[in-house]
Amino acid sequence: MNLRQYLSERKAIIDESLDKLLPYDSEYPNIIHKSIRYSIFSGGKRIRPILVMASAETVGGSFQDVIPIACGVELIHTYSLIHDDLPALDNDNYRRGKLTNHKVFGEEIAILAGDALLTMAFEIISNEQNKVNSHKILQIINELARSCGTKGMIGGQVVDLESEGKQINISTLEYIHINKTAALINASIRAGAIYFDASEEQLNMLTKYAEKLGLLFQITDDLLDLEGDIKKIGKPVGSDIKNKKATYPRLCGIDKTYSIAHKLADEAKEIAGSFGEKGTFFNLLPDYLLTREF
Amino acid sequence: MNLRQYLSERKAIIDESLDKLLPYDSEYPNIIHKSIRYSIFSGGKRIRPILVMASAETVGGSFQDVIPIACGVELIHTYSLIHDDLPALDNDNYRRGKLTNHKVFGEEIAILAGDALLTMAFEIISNEQNKVNSHKILQIINELARSCGTKGMIGGQVVDLESEGKQINISTLEYIHINKTAALINASIRAGAIYFDASEEQLNMLTKYAEKLGLLFQITDDLLDLEGDIKKIGKPVGSDIKNKKATYPRLCGIDKTYSIAHKLADEAKEIAGSFGEKGTFFNLLPDYLLTREF
Repeated sequence: MNLRQYLSERKAIIDESLDKLLPYDSEYPNIIHKSIRYSIFSGGKRIRPILVMASAETVGGSFQDVIPIACGVELIHTYSLIHDDLPALDNDNYRRGKLTNHKVFGEEIAILAGDALLTMAFEIISNEQNKVNSHKILQIINELARSCGTKGMIGGQVVDLESEGKQINISTLEYIHINKTAALINASIRAGAIYFDASEEQLNMLTKYAEKLGLLFQITDDLLDLEGDIKKIGKPVGSDIKNKKATYPRLCGIDKTYSIAHKLADEAKEIAGSFGEKGTFFNLLPDYLLTREF
Repeated sequence: MNLRQYLSERKAIIDESLDKLLPYDSEYPNIIHKSIRYSIFSGGKRIRPILVMASAETVGGSFQDVIPIACGVELIHTYSLIHDDLPALDNDNYRRGKLTNHKVFGEEIAILAGDALLTMAFEIISNEQNKVNSHKILQIINELARSCGTKGMIGGQVVDLESEGKQINISTLEYIHINKTAALINASIRAGAIYFDASEEQLNMLTKYAEKLGLLFQITDDLLDLEGDIKKIGKPVGSDIKNKKATYPRLCGIDKTYSIAHKLADEAKEIAGSFGEKGTFFNLLPDYLLTREF
């Protein structure tokens, strides 16, 4: 498997599906649809939807069937970025090298665009005519919502905001990462497998994998923020430092952070190995994250 | 039927259910749960959840079974109020006589509390173990999400914001009311009936009723805003005028607005009549809205 090619092909599938699912710019009221499309098509790598599709395949399903769920997850992710960037929260002017949503459309539209994306995620996922699968889809909606709520993503976001400028310990930092980033990654991976009736054992393995991957994902993001280059990640380098955000490098130092990341990657790969050939993507992904420049 | 007593009893049922469903103030991270409970328990009349329950009964179902859906609808309604009140939107300091969420908890927590309530609504509604009903619940989630999206509540909100301080015509005003207020009322009434396998004809009648009621609801709110008293409605009288909001009284004058409202009430009652005794609540509600002081 050529991972870069795989990621690029899967991203193209998601981009095309999102384009079909989202209202056009020209639909009334135009400004909200422009705002939504602006953020959705601003260079996201579609990692979370790709995880949904890959997980479906890992348990023997077809990725096409979970595309609506995959797109829903990307809408949720994008909503969270738009709201995170708002002046009242992280107050970021740039993301992925482009002006943030509120800088282009104003705060009021950015708030509503985030609200609309979250709402639309549940609309798209529930828009399923297949009665046989209804129970599974309900379970997926339930797990996704839980992962984004106050005991998941929003909880992580709240503690992250509360920790700004404060001395925090490693367990608080872990809480932030596990909830703010890893929870949705976990729910994405579980969603693809649940859709195809994964066994309890498969789900347990995927959940463990997802926990490692989610933490690895946030840690490599922290490292990127510290060492990255604005051209590559599209936001001013060190914006976490500007906001006095708690990160692994700040708390443990760079060397220790790299060694934590490598350990997580090794553990994730070991779990992925148990899925045999069907786990190839999950096996390659951790090393890719370790060396990523996005 | 004593309508005031009925409303008060139903409100008590919803309040108790919400109290059970929502995380306690003491749950981590405390501030977001405090913020959520602050707005949920700040004197809402629970009209939308009561509509869900009444609609279930109108088609022969039991109101107890739709309580989670009813609560979900109230969470959605509350999220929309918190975000509407934000400085970037209506910038209101008071609602129902109490400080708005962001005035108490700060803008960042108010944004996240709204996000959390919207998310939790879908979590609660999808948290259903009964496989038989899964398909119906998916349909309800789908309709609710649609009613709150850019072709529903959020669309109405966007056009409302864009219309501030502008001369608008009656069809734009209707668009705002139908989407910002009536869409969720419509979805609430349909939800209770869909849950109990209402016939196509029943659903059509209820939908027509809901369209009249939704518009009547917003028009009487406009009249209240103009003529009300801060002690009764809990916000400074004439706040719509402060924001140069488009309203029926501003566009058509007070007398014409009252006659539109009475016509809508008559039409709604006629439809409710076709449900016989089971439609008693729906029959009494329009006149109650006409004379309401809340």
